[in-house]
Amino acid sequence: CVCVCVGSYSASQGVECIRQHVAEFITERDQGVPSDWNNIYLTTGASDGIMSILKLLVSGEGSGRTGVLIPIPQYPLYSAALSELDAVHIHYYLDEDSCWALDIEELQRAYLSAKQLCTPRALCIINPGNPTGQVQSKKCIEEVLHFAYEENLFVMADEVYQDNVYSADCHFHSFKKVLYEMGPEYFNNVELVSFHSTSKGYTGECGFRGGYMEVLNMDPQVKEQLVKLLSVRLCPPVPGQAAMDVIVNPPREHEPSYAQFIKEKSWVLDVLAQKARLTEQILNSVPGIKCNPVQGAMYAFPRIFIPPRAIQEAKARSMAPDMLYCLKLLEETGICVIPGSGFGQREGTYHFRMTILPSPEKLTVLLGKLKEFHLRFLEEYSQEGAQSSSLHREEGAH
Amino acid sequence: CVCVCVGSYSASQGVECIRQHVAEFITERDQGVPSDWNNIYLTTGASDGIMSILKLLVSGEGSGRTGVLIPIPQYPLYSAALSELDAVHIHYYLDEDSCWALDIEELQRAYLSAKQLCTPRALCIINPGNPTGQVQSKKCIEEVLHFAYEENLFVMADEVYQDNVYSADCHFHSFKKVLYEMGPEYFNNVELVSFHSTSKGYTGECGFRGGYMEVLNMDPQVKEQLVKLLSVRLCPPVPGQAAMDVIVNPPREHEPSYAQFIKEKSWVLDVLAQKARLTEQILNSVPGIKCNPVQGAMYAFPRIFIPPRAIQEAKARSMAPDMLYCLKLLEETGICVIPGSGFGQREGTYHFRMTILPSPEKLTVLLGKLKEFHLRFLEEYSQEGAQSSSLHREEGAH
Repeated sequence: CVCVCVGSYSASQGVECIRQHVAEFITERDQGVPSDWNNIYLTTGASDGIMSILKLLVSGEGSGRTGVLIPIPQYPLYSAALSELDAVHIHYYLDEDSCWALDIEELQRAYLSAKQLCTPRALCIINPGNPTGQVQSKKCIEEVLHFAYEENLFVMADEVYQDNVYSADCHFHSFKKVLYEMGPEYFNNVELVSFHSTSKGYTGECGFRGGYMEVLNMDPQVKEQLVKLLSVRLCPPVPGQAAMDVIVNPPREHEPSYAQFIKEKSWVLDVLAQKARLTEQILNSVPGIKCNPVQGAMYAFPRIFIPPRAIQEAKARSMAPDMLYCLKLLEETGICVIPGSGFGQREGTYHFRMTILPSPEKLTVLLGKLKEFHLRFLEEYSQEGAQSSSLHREEGAH
Repeated sequence: CVCVCVGSYSASQGVECIRQHVAEFITERDQGVPSDWNNIYLTTGASDGIMSILKLLVSGEGSGRTGVLIPIPQYPLYSAALSELDAVHIHYYLDEDSCWALDIEELQRAYLSAKQLCTPRALCIINPGNPTGQVQSKKCIEEVLHFAYEENLFVMADEVYQDNVYSADCHFHSFKKVLYEMGPEYFNNVELVSFHSTSKGYTGECGFRGGYMEVLNMDPQVKEQLVKLLSVRLCPPVPGQAAMDVIVNPPREHEPSYAQFIKEKSWVLDVLAQKARLTEQILNSVPGIKCNPVQGAMYAFPRIFIPPRAIQEAKARSMAPDMLYCLKLLEETGICVIPGSGFGQREGTYHFRMTILPSPEKLTVLLGKLKEFHLRFLEEYSQEGAQSSSLHREEGAH
């Protein structure tokens, strides 16, 4: 296609030639795994796609009520969407001690315990993780897909951070490519949707609200309902569709802007990787803070030790302890991070999420202030400084 | 505000200074009726705003299930949204014999009959009308607002066609201004939301998905929930917000582009008015078609006579009779209009909706072909041409 009129409505699934470009992009990304543009739907950011698919999947009451497996910690879009749709939230906990890896046994435990109470129908995975920043191994993805195949679960793979992988020993594996390599019995049967967005990666064009989803093995009659559902809102914003088109059509080697493009892209991703390491290092130098490596995405999600007296004070103020921590941090330093309780965390543990997006210079200053704040906070709430927690001791051994 | 970065997320309610500009625009439009920018929310087109408000209002089961009054014929976003949310659709019929005016007694009838079965909570009005093109009188708006006040109904005023008024004897009256003029008892109590959009008017920038809503007298705690709901999708597309900003900030008299702006705006609206008259005239020249004046919006919604044999054929093919008509029109002429059954209509009447958007030259050719088709259709399905319906006879008297 030569030109797209951004001022006009498009088809509800998105502009046809952009959908074709997306399919070509996916085929190239997955080294030849076929992608059919009829399975591509452009969306108003990834959030809109996730919401549309959940709407299609959720139904029923009582023990027939749809259950959806979501990671804990999770990006709160999922819990908000499930609450809005009145679906059952089935929590599977990511393993903080293994860099927030998805543990297949924990997934099975969550599934089996929920099966008594509802009808589990879908499984959400965020890879690379938000807020946890982990990058899933190929083996783990295989296990998840095998599990989904066995239990007939619809897999929702939130892969918006697919370009944001920083650790040298981690690689992004798309759920689709792994499914393909598991053979036709899997590739032709497992229902899978993958979401992508213009808002992350090395462009970060989040104001345009652009995105796409690729839907595999969805029943044709359900697909008809999906198109009907999308049609009610007419179409995704066309400038956002155009932005998605640009992202899936980067300059090619023979093109004049290629060298400049590669230079800028590498620079953006290299700086992000540098900031991921910097953040982890400085956070881990603070007694009472423990941070997993930021393997991907744009966030650190460190665990913080909160002294019992601070926990008591938070309870007295009807506040989550990490909310008290974050509010104090904001008031005392102007730094805004998000309490872990907004994402979910194992009972009795406390975290916050911070982005690695500020410049390295700003980030260094910011982390320095955060460190000072944390030490002051420990001091303020320690009981004569005599008490110490297991996490505290653990940190001492760093 | 000097500049807005379209590539970044904005606040979920929209960019603050654009909300301020919208409030100033409304104050000016309504000749001084105050507008508070804290009541303005930018949206992803009007559809998204309508959906968000309905989500807030709909709840309950059995006789507690929320009922929403919608006009028939209506723009199908409303019926689709209510079905999606599992709310009760309460139909009030617009009066075709009075240029599709809203009849307050019919509204009361619909309300009272529904009250037995559900809990009516909201009242939707589209003014100027879609698909019916009528412009509501000030007196009628007063009656509607008085009724909403008495019955404690949340008024949803879809005013996206506020700039599209063509008949010399019609004027756009905003629900808000009329409410204000009814006095403080009304203005401080009736819950009212008005929707506007970048997609209509004299700009028609529908691909940007820009819009706003102004919310009056909403309970502060409900407003908090509204912001929470909007936050799940992060923000409306920022280029669409910028387009809305341009529309509410037209060039001023002292500015260099003012003369050009007025020339283009007048030209666009004059041509639309000309096409509104042309469409009505040509349609009414066809035996078996009767079209109300297109007072506003962008559509004609003529009533069509469908011969009994065509009705039988449609039934045999499990199709609405006007769907059969529209499909045949499409197949034989390439002209695409939408059957009235998609918008709702009184039992036993048939219509179609067509836009008046093609150029006058194209529109003349199109209406000529439509006329030929209609005569052929009547001929084809008449039983030896001997039968005649009441509408048929009525048309003969034109």
